[in-house]
Amino acid sequence: MSDLGAILDRIGAEMAAAPDRGRVADYIPELARISDRHFAMAVCTADGQTFITGEADTPFSIQSVSKVFTLAIALGRLGDQLWTRVGREPSGLAFNSMVQLEYERGIPRNPFINAGALVVTDAILAGHKPRELLGEILRFLREAAGEDDIHINKAVAASEQATGHRNLALAHFMAAHGNLLHAPDLTCGTYFHQCAIEMSARQLALAGRFLIGAPDLPRMLAPGRTRRINALMMTCGHYDGSGEFAYRVGLPGKSGVGGGILVIAPGRASIAVWSPGLNAQGNSQLGTLAVERLARATGWSVFG
Amino acid sequence: MSDLGAILDRIGAEMAAAPDRGRVADYIPELARISDRHFAMAVCTADGQTFITGEADTPFSIQSVSKVFTLAIALGRLGDQLWTRVGREPSGLAFNSMVQLEYERGIPRNPFINAGALVVTDAILAGHKPRELLGEILRFLREAAGEDDIHINKAVAASEQATGHRNLALAHFMAAHGNLLHAPDLTCGTYFHQCAIEMSARQLALAGRFLIGAPDLPRMLAPGRTRRINALMMTCGHYDGSGEFAYRVGLPGKSGVGGGILVIAPGRASIAVWSPGLNAQGNSQLGTLAVERLARATGWSVFG
Amino acid sequence: MSDLGAILDRIGAEMAAAPDRGRVADYIPELARISDRHFAMAVCTADGQTFITGEADTPFSIQSVSKVFTLAIALGRLGDQLWTRVGREPSGLAFNSMVQLEYERGIPRNPFINAGALVVTDAILAGHKPRELLGEILRFLREAAGEDDIHINKAVAASEQATGHRNLALAHFMAAHGNLLHAPDLTCGTYFHQCAIEMSARQLALAGRFLIGAPDLPRMLAPGRTRRINALMMTCGHYDGSGEFAYRVGLPGKSGVGGGILVIAPGRASIAVWSPGLNAQGNSQLGTLAVERLARATGWSVFG
Amino acid sequence: MSDLGAILDRIGAEMAAAPDRGRVADYIPELARISDRHFAMAVCTADGQTFITGEADTPFSIQSVSKVFTLAIALGRLGDQLWTRVGREPSGLAFNSMVQLEYERGIPRNPFINAGALVVTDAILAGHKPRELLGEILRFLREAAGEDDIHINKAVAASEQATGHRNLALAHFMAAHGNLLHAPDLTCGTYFHQCAIEMSARQLALAGRFLIGAPDLPRMLAPGRTRRINALMMTCGHYDGSGEFAYRVGLPGKSGVGGGILVIAPGRASIAVWSPGLNAQGNSQLGTLAVERLARATGWSVFG
Repeated sequence: MSDLGAILDRIGAEMAAAPDRGRVADYIPELARISDRHFAMAVCTADGQTFITGEADTPFSIQSVSKVFTLAIALGRLGDQLWTRVGREPSGLAFNSMVQLEYERGIPRNPFINAGALVVTDAILAGHKPRELLGEILRFLREAAGEDDIHINKAVAASEQATGHRNLALAHFMAAHGNLLHAPDLTCGTYFHQCAIEMSARQLALAGRFLIGAPDLPRMLAPGRTRRINALMMTCGHYDGSGEFAYRVGLPGKSGVGGGILVIAPGRASIAVWSPGLNAQGNSQLGTLAVERLARATGWSVFG
Repeated sequence: MSDLGAILDRIGAEMAAAPDRGRVADYIPELARISDRHFAMAVCTADGQTFITGEADTPFSIQSVSKVFTLAIALGRLGDQLWTRVGREPSGLAFNSMVQLEYERGIPRNPFINAGALVVTDAILAGHKPRELLGEILRFLREAAGEDDIHINKAVAASEQATGHRNLALAHFMAAHGNLLHAPDLTCGTYFHQCAIEMSARQLALAGRFLIGAPDLPRMLAPGRTRRINALMMTCGHYDGSGEFAYRVGLPGKSGVGGGILVIAPGRASIAVWSPGLNAQGNSQLGTLAVERLARATGWSVFG
Repeated sequence: MSDLGAILDRIGAEMAAAPDRGRVADYIPELARISDRHFAMAVCTADGQTFITGEADTPFSIQSVSKVFTLAIALGRLGDQLWTRVGREPSGLAFNSMVQLEYERGIPRNPFINAGALVVTDAILAGHKPRELLGEILRFLREAAGEDDIHINKAVAASEQATGHRNLALAHFMAAHGNLLHAPDLTCGTYFHQCAIEMSARQLALAGRFLIGAPDLPRMLAPGRTRRINALMMTCGHYDGSGEFAYRVGLPGKSGVGGGILVIAPGRASIAVWSPGLNAQGNSQLGTLAVERLARATGWSVFG
Repeated sequence: MSDLGAILDRIGAEMAAAPDRGRVADYIPELARISDRHFAMAVCTADGQTFITGEADTPFSIQSVSKVFTLAIALGRLGDQLWTRVGREPSGLAFNSMVQLEYERGIPRNPFINAGALVVTDAILAGHKPRELLGEILRFLREAAGEDDIHINKAVAASEQATGHRNLALAHFMAAHGNLLHAPDLTCGTYFHQCAIEMSARQLALAGRFLIGAPDLPRMLAPGRTRRINALMMTCGHYDGSGEFAYRVGLPGKSGVGGGILVIAPGRASIAVWSPGLNAQGNSQLGTLAVERLARATGWSVFG
């Protein structure tokens, strides 16, 4: 494991020189202004070490990576009851598609597409005010990461709200099918804030340690549940690019349009990577490439 | 590992007593006559041992499990060139759907749905007569299994041919998009015979050993390729039940409508299970349950 | 034409005795309470006469029949410019489907499905407050009908608003594609009120006279435009039952879930029918049957 | 009616000068070679006169216009029984789409899309050899037109057969759903020959006279049935451009990819037009424009 620092250094250098950096998401104005030059990677190993390269202490908008943590909270609170409202299958469609939602009567395919994540947030909002739930999500992240300096960027939240028509369409559609407990505005408003959480790559890798399944790390959830979150990240974590990520990287991961990806090497490590330029499926172009190289160099693929 | 025999015995006993055995596929007349009482399981470990329970030496129709082996042959012969004709993403739809094929202009989503498997067979048919290719597939299986007694059931092949309109529809549709090298009749005829291969659970587990990635086992393909076949089995191996299989079992697998499933525990074991009754997604009901229990008892899930 | 009274009398008697009256729409609570026993029919001929049968002076909720009149206002005000925002093709799908809207990037197929009607209302809302536009719609109807006693039922409007999630989903979705000028709440709120307009069959038949294209009747729009509204009613006026209505009746018509249908016999008559029970496509069961019999008895089909 | 000659002359001159002539279909090699310069129009009026302009005696491939006549034969022979196998609704999709066929389990939407026309041909093939049925279709056309010189172009039929994979895909798909009586090869082979019938514009207009519904013209079918064929031509005759044709022209019509359109002005005239260049929906670009101008000049729109 003494090589891990060297591996990360090499990857960091390669990514700095990479010519094709993807395209920064342009549909949330506050995110569209981020430069595609950023790159950061952090790896927390099962034995408690942390390795970094690049701007690993610069906070970025975790966006859909937050879905991993709200799912963990939901499974901890509701258990398998959650699965009456959302499925566990890859969608085969874009992250914000309504087509499948219509054919399948308001039950989203999985918790990592937007419709499914809205259902998860809606489920754990029950009995809380939005502000309280957002406080709980932040507490979960801070405890998992062992760091307090994790916050919501209000300007980003406001920017998402202003351009959030597609998520509101999904929420109203599910409400029409009786699959939303709260008013669409309320659930979406909470969701927009959750997506606007900012963390550094180091913090995100730390926060992901509970999914490694190693004995001496923070434990936020029963082992059976963390295993299943990893399974969902493998089959559904990269929208309609999940098969490709599994094929190239061989590890479960969850990406966000802010350019972050949280990747788990079960039993071995929690990995966070950030580079804002996205590929055609909406996943970080260099982030994917960097974890692919890490997986190859370390032999961490779960597939042999 | 001395417990593995005991674990299999227990699973065999549980499955014999299971009340809900699923429904035997009825659309291929020759298969519709099989009793739902059958059950067999075989496990070949990385250190060369084999454990069995049930009717592990009774041959059954491997059907779509054959797609794993034709994919291996295709990757060995064509390499990444194959991916210009077929994708690597879960489909989110039934195994024989034409909807996505139309929206995506004749390029099937992955090699494990029917359209994709037809493309794979069509690709390796190039330069061969159907009989020659079928001979090569059988030789691959025999060499991988280290057993010679593996054959095609001609009555089943004829039965598939007689009721194969949906596969012919897929083949003609791809031909219309220029994604078929041979006449649809020829490619489909070869495919129907490949699906009609019969193997016992023991033979199938043996034939799957090259996907374990262990040093002392038969090696049919470069390690990088076997890893990727496992990745595809994880995300796409159970049609529109792939997410569910990953969630419950946590191992890559490929099912067939004959009731067989080949499952790989990377670095550890190759597992074959057979029970003809299918669940709603067309995967073996008891087969899935049996490997779920095996994975739990052994801790073999790749997800921690 | 002296027989027309007798024809209507006979149809009225047949409808009173009809055993299968369809099902009253249940998704708007205020409408779900209406009895399926109601029946009314009114015919205004090109020469200025009016014939009625049944409860022709009982007001009912015109619902989507209002789309004919907002389209007339929109064409009068915007002309062909309207067609940059909405198409002119039958949809082949349910009246509130989102599938096509997604594949066609937020441009509804025609002005008579919900998404298209929302665009029309949104277009004529420009420069107005909702209250002003609703006033204009009522004025248009009153002038066309030559009757002042036409109003909005506020309880129905409130009921639609409370259960209007699917329309809000459509509106937000179009907003996401830049095809909505106003906030979804505002456009939908106006639309819910427009749907809650109440008229009697007699009033509705009178209001439809401008579409007959006869010289001595009220003229609300240039003849070329009324002809085209009739064409759209023929191909798109009954959602995914438009082909069936054309086949059986042979006249352009527009139905509403309140059980009303406005039908035009070009050059001859304007016909309104009302019976609250709906068929599987969401069109009045007895209303359709009644106009089918009227068309057969009079020979008014446009198809020979 | 003395002006009709002058109207046609003017339209012929305008079409000769039209700069945008559409694109000749390229997917049937034999048709791809036809020049886009051709134009012909013929009008047979209810009183027995015929007016022409352009190359009205040059035979062209009627392609899908043949569907009108096979539908007439099927309705004459099977009556309403036909509608258990094919629907009467516009499809809202391309002429050769498989999407709807899958969602609606092998029942085509209407007799004028390819799948529906295959069902019609399959239905009237019952009890006949393909050659016999093709003879019957030709006899029907010759009798309706009162002309004997109507034939099948065998080179075109062979060319369709060689590139007919999409139609074979549709046929196999329907066979899989039990909605085809004959082997797909047989039904498709007959259909390809039926599409390869050649007629001149004059002959086609003559053959369409039975749909006018006038007393002194050849009668091939009961009046109730001709009315309904006209209704289907109005709502479904131009594939996913049917709404647009109804909007612009206001008359029922059926187009073919050979560039022909048969249009009926009920009670007034049968119109045939031919110009090989197609618009985006696969309908004759100048043919549509020419009948639009004819309808405007004559006031023949059925919509007032």
